[in-house]
Amino acid sequence: MSDQNTADRKVDIRQPVMSANDRIAEANRDRFAALGAYVINMISSPGAGKTTLLQAMAERMADEMAVIVGDLQTRRDAERVREKGVRAHQIETGGACHLDARAVMKATGAMDLQPGDCKVLVVENVGNLVCPASFELGEHMKVALLSLPEGDDKVLKYPSIFSRIGALLITKTDLAPHMDFDVDRAIAECESLNKDFRTFQISARTGEGVDAFCDFLLAKQSGLTA
Amino acid sequence: MSDQNTADRKVDIRQPVMSANDRIAEANRDRFAALGAYVINMISSPGAGKTTLLQAMAERMADEMAVIVGDLQTRRDAERVREKGVRAHQIETGGACHLDARAVMKATGAMDLQPGDCKVLVVENVGNLVCPASFELGEHMKVALLSLPEGDDKVLKYPSIFSRIGALLITKTDLAPHMDFDVDRAIAECESLNKDFRTFQISARTGEGVDAFCDFLLAKQSGLTA
Repeated sequence: MSDQNTADRKVDIRQPVMSANDRIAEANRDRFAALGAYVINMISSPGAGKTTLLQAMAERMADEMAVIVGDLQTRRDAERVREKGVRAHQIETGGACHLDARAVMKATGAMDLQPGDCKVLVVENVGNLVCPASFELGEHMKVALLSLPEGDDKVLKYPSIFSRIGALLITKTDLAPHMDFDVDRAIAECESLNKDFRTFQISARTGEGVDAFCDFLLAKQSGLTA
Repeated sequence: MSDQNTADRKVDIRQPVMSANDRIAEANRDRFAALGAYVINMISSPGAGKTTLLQAMAERMADEMAVIVGDLQTRRDAERVREKGVRAHQIETGGACHLDARAVMKATGAMDLQPGDCKVLVVENVGNLVCPASFELGEHMKVALLSLPEGDDKVLKYPSIFSRIGALLITKTDLAPHMDFDVDRAIAECESLNKDFRTFQISARTGEGVDAFCDFLLAKQSGLTA
C-alpha cells in the first residue's frame, strides 16, 4: 500500500490495551454463561436503525430481552427502548468511538442481571462501522445492520466488520421502491468475506423479518442450555 | 461519568501522535495556500452520500475541483468521481478509521497538484462520524453530511463533529416524503453546539442545493486570494 496512515504506527502501542480488553471480554463471557443469556454485539453506521429494531423486537419479546446501549453522548436510545418495557442501560462513552469489554462489564454490573432475567442480551454499540469491529465484548455473536439508504457497496468498503458477523440484517426494506440497492450484491460480497452468517431482511416499520430474527436469537439461546 | 472506556486510558499515549499530526497539518496548510485551493474535509456516516454529491458537483465544476478519497478498502469512490472528469486520488487506509494529515500530504504529492490546477480540493474522509473529527488535515473547513434516513437525532449524539463544522449538508432531501426527519430540529441542535456554520439542503439526485453549495465554496476560494 502506498499510502500509510499514522494509525498504523499505533499498533504496537495499542497491543497491550487490546489484550487487556480480551481478558475482560473472557470474564464477561463467563458471566453471560452464568446468566444463561445469548449475547449479541449490534454494530452499524449511525442511523441504520439499531434502536428502532430493538423497539420492534420488544413488541415480540420485551420480557425475554435486555439491552445495553452505547452512545458518545445523550441517553435517548436507552429511554426509547425502556418505553417499550425493556430493561435497558445507557453507556455514554464521552467521545470514545466504540464500546469495550470493561464498559460492558460495568453496565452488566449496574443492571444487576440475575440468571433467568433475560434470554437475549443485546449490546447496541456506538454508531460506527469501523472501530467496534476490533473490540471483543465477550458476546456470542456480532450482528451488523446495513440499511438500504447506505448503499449496496458498503460490505467490501468495511470488511473488518462484515467478515466477523454471524448475522447480516438488511434494514429499512420498506424503502426499497425508492432505492437502488441490490440485495443479492450485498449478500454475495459478504459471502466473499465470510462463510458463516445468516441474512435477515428487516423493516422495523412494517415488521418484516423481525419475528424471524427474534426466533433465530431465541433458538441460539435454547442451544446454549441444550 | 460512571462508565469509563479503556479508550480514555489511551489519551496520554496518543498525545504525541496527535501533535505530530498537527505539525503535518500545518505543512499541508502552507501547501494548500501555495496551490490557491480552498480545501474541505468532508465527513459523514457511511452512505450519507459523499461520493454521489461529488459526482453532482462535477456537473457544475469538474474543471475547478480535485478530490482525495479515503476508504478502508476498495478504490471505487475515486473511480466514480473520475468518471465525471474530476481529478481524483484514492487513499486506502488499510483498516484505519480516519484520514490523517500524513496520508493527505502523500496524496497531494502523488497527485502533483500545481498552483491554479483547482480552486476547490475536497478530501472525502472515511465514512465515520466519530474519529475523523479529531484529526486535522490542514483543511480550511470541515463539512458534515447528515442524510435524512439517518434521523434527526444524530447531531447531539455525535457532537464532536457537529461542533467543528463550517457547513451542514442535509442530504437525500428527495426522500423527505418517506421520512420523519425534522430539519429544524437538526439545525437547532447544531446551533446549540456551533455558532458559525451554514446549512445546505441537498439532493444529489434532483440537484437541489448543489449549485448553492458549489457557489459557497467558490466564493470561499475567491476570498483566499482577495
